[in-house]
Amino acid sequence: MLEDKNTQKTSLAELGEFGLINHITKYFKINHSSTVKGVGDDTAVLDASEKQTLVTTDLLIEGVHFDLSYMPLKHLGYKAVMVNLSDVYAMNGVAEQITVSIAVSNRFPLEAIEELYAGIQLGCETYNVDLIGGDTTSSTKGILISVTAIGKATKEEVVYRNGAKETDLIVVSGDLGAAYLGLQVLEREKQVFKVDPNNQPDLDNYTYLIERQLKPEARKDVAGLLKELEVKPTSMIDISDGLSSELFHICTQSKVGCKVYEDKLPLDPQVISACEEFELDSTMVALSGGEDYEILFTVPIADFDKIKGNPNFSIVGHVVAENQGLNLVTRANQEIELKAQGWSSIKG
Amino acid sequence: MLEDKNTQKTSLAELGEFGLINHITKYFKINHSSTVKGVGDDTAVLDASEKQTLVTTDLLIEGVHFDLSYMPLKHLGYKAVMVNLSDVYAMNGVAEQITVSIAVSNRFPLEAIEELYAGIQLGCETYNVDLIGGDTTSSTKGILISVTAIGKATKEEVVYRNGAKETDLIVVSGDLGAAYLGLQVLEREKQVFKVDPNNQPDLDNYTYLIERQLKPEARKDVAGLLKELEVKPTSMIDISDGLSSELFHICTQSKVGCKVYEDKLPLDPQVISACEEFELDSTMVALSGGEDYEILFTVPIADFDKIKGNPNFSIVGHVVAENQGLNLVTRANQEIELKAQGWSSIKG
Repeated sequence: MLEDKNTQKTSLAELGEFGLINHITKYFKINHSSTVKGVGDDTAVLDASEKQTLVTTDLLIEGVHFDLSYMPLKHLGYKAVMVNLSDVYAMNGVAEQITVSIAVSNRFPLEAIEELYAGIQLGCETYNVDLIGGDTTSSTKGILISVTAIGKATKEEVVYRNGAKETDLIVVSGDLGAAYLGLQVLEREKQVFKVDPNNQPDLDNYTYLIERQLKPEARKDVAGLLKELEVKPTSMIDISDGLSSELFHICTQSKVGCKVYEDKLPLDPQVISACEEFELDSTMVALSGGEDYEILFTVPIADFDKIKGNPNFSIVGHVVAENQGLNLVTRANQEIELKAQGWSSIKG
Repeated sequence: MLEDKNTQKTSLAELGEFGLINHITKYFKINHSSTVKGVGDDTAVLDASEKQTLVTTDLLIEGVHFDLSYMPLKHLGYKAVMVNLSDVYAMNGVAEQITVSIAVSNRFPLEAIEELYAGIQLGCETYNVDLIGGDTTSSTKGILISVTAIGKATKEEVVYRNGAKETDLIVVSGDLGAAYLGLQVLEREKQVFKVDPNNQPDLDNYTYLIERQLKPEARKDVAGLLKELEVKPTSMIDISDGLSSELFHICTQSKVGCKVYEDKLPLDPQVISACEEFELDSTMVALSGGEDYEILFTVPIADFDKIKGNPNFSIVGHVVAENQGLNLVTRANQEIELKAQGWSSIKG
C-alpha cells in the first residue's frame, strides 16, 4: 500500500505536531455525553458517573506485533482499537473512549498516517467510541501505537477473572484458531512474494482466516447477549494469547482447575482444512493460537439450558477443584495436562 | 549506569511477560479507595465518582525524548510520571492513577527495568498515585515508555485553556528555562566524555539546571496554593514546550492576545550565569526552552493583591484583545511579536 510512486506525498515535518493532531482529529466526532472535553487541552475530561470506570492499555510495535508488508495501515489502526476494546468487553463493560499515541519514523508520509487514522476512526464509529486524546511523536525506527481504552459498567455488572467456581461451565464465544492460521497464510505468501514478486496469490480458501488476522472484531455483543439470556458470568477474560493461556489466568485467579473437551472446541471449517494443509494439530491451534479476541467465561451450571444450542457460544468444559489441575480431555477420552503457552510456542 | 561488568544480570527472556509484570508490580501499593482493581485483570476498575475524570497520555522514546548516556533509568521513570501528572495538575485536578506501558530491546537486563520502575514507584509514592495497569513488550530498538494518567476534579474546579479574558493577569509558577540549560550542560559533558572518558566533570555550578532536566517535579501544589488564596484561574496550562508556545495555546483557545514583560520573567541565578556562558539570550531561553513543567495560568485582575508578592508565583503580563496579538515588551519598552516556537528552535 501507498507504494504508488506517482502519488503526492506530504512530509510530516511540513505539518508539525500540532498541525498533524488537528489534521487527523478533525474528522472524529464525539458521541458520548460523558465526553465533556476530548482532544485539545492538557487532559480529556469525562463526566461524573455512577458507574465504575474500566481502564486498559496496549502497545503495538512494528516488527514485534505486526508486519506492514501484509498488514495495511488502515487495518492496523482498526486492530489497535479492537485489541483494547476487547479488554473492556471482557470485563462485561461498555467501551466509551480511547486515547491513541503514535510514534512514526520519517519514512512515513502524512498519507500513511491518514490511512492509519482512517482505520482508527472506523473502529471508533463502528464500536461507538470517542477518541479523546493522545500523543504524536517521531520514532527512530518504524511505527508504534499505544492505545488506552476507557469503559463503564455498574459495580454489579463488572466480571473479574477470579470468580469461577467448581462445577461452573466454561464457555467461549465464536470460534478459535483462525487468526493464528491467517498469520501463517500471510507469512507464507510473504516468502513466496520474496522469491517471485509477480506471483498472484489465490487466497480464496483463506478469506475467513485472513480477515480474522487483519481485521479482528471485538465481541461488543457478548455482554448484551448474556443480559438477554439473563446469565451473569462468574469470571470472564478475552482470548488474546490462546485459550490455554487464558484458562490459566482464570484458574489461577479463581483458585480452581478445569477440564476442557477436545471435541467441544469450536473450529471453523477453514481452520480444519488449513491445519491439514500446514500439518498443524487443530486442537493445538485452538488452544495456543493467539489473537482470536473472543470471550472466555464461566457460568453456573444452573444456566446450562440458557447457553446450550446458542449459536454464539460453545460450552467447552467445566470447572473442577484446584488440586485436579487444568486438563484437556481428548477424543480418545485421555486426559492431558494443559500448558500455559501462548501462540509463540506453536511456531518453534 | 548498570555498566559494572561483574554485576549479575537477569535476561528478560528468562522471566517472560507475566513474570516480569509480577516482578515489577509487586512493590507498588494501592493507596486510593477509588482504585477498586489495579494490575491483574483485563482492565483496571475505578470506583464511581461524583467528580469528573481527567485523562492524559504521553509517549517518551529513546533517541527522541531522552538520551540514556546521561539520563539514568530511575530518573527516566520518575520523569515519565511527572510529565503526565503535570497535565492533570494543569487542569486544576488531582492525579490518582497511572498506567505505564514499556517496550524494551533485549540489550536491557531485568536490573535495568527494575531501575526504571524504581523511578516510577518513587514518582507514584511522592505524588500519591496508584499504578493500575500497563503493557510490557519487546522492541526492535531501544526503550520507550507510554504513560496514561487519570485524575479527578469537580466540574467547578476544572480549568480549561479557553477561559482567559481581557485584562486578566498572566501568572507562572516557579522559574523558567533551567531544564533547557540543564540539557545543554549534559550535552556538552557528553561531547567532552567522548573526547576524554577520564575527564571528571565539575558540575557544581549547574546542580539546579541538571536537576530540573533529569528530575523535574510536577506542580501538584499549585491547585492547593490557589485554593488557599481563594483564586480561581480563568485558564491554565502546563509549560512543557516553552512559555511562548503555551501562551499561544491559551490565547488561541481563549480568542485573546497578551502582553508579556521581559523584566518580569522569573529566572534562577544559575539560568542567568549559564546563559552568559553558553552565549544564549536568557529571555529566549525562558520563552522557548522546554520541559519546565511549571504552570501558566490567568486570573482576574481583581485578584492582583492575592497573587502579588507570593514567592510561588510571578505575574509576567496581562491579557489583551485578540487583535492586539501576542507581544513581548522588552526592557527597552519595545514590543516584539511572540512566536509559537518550542525549545527545538533555540537549538538550530
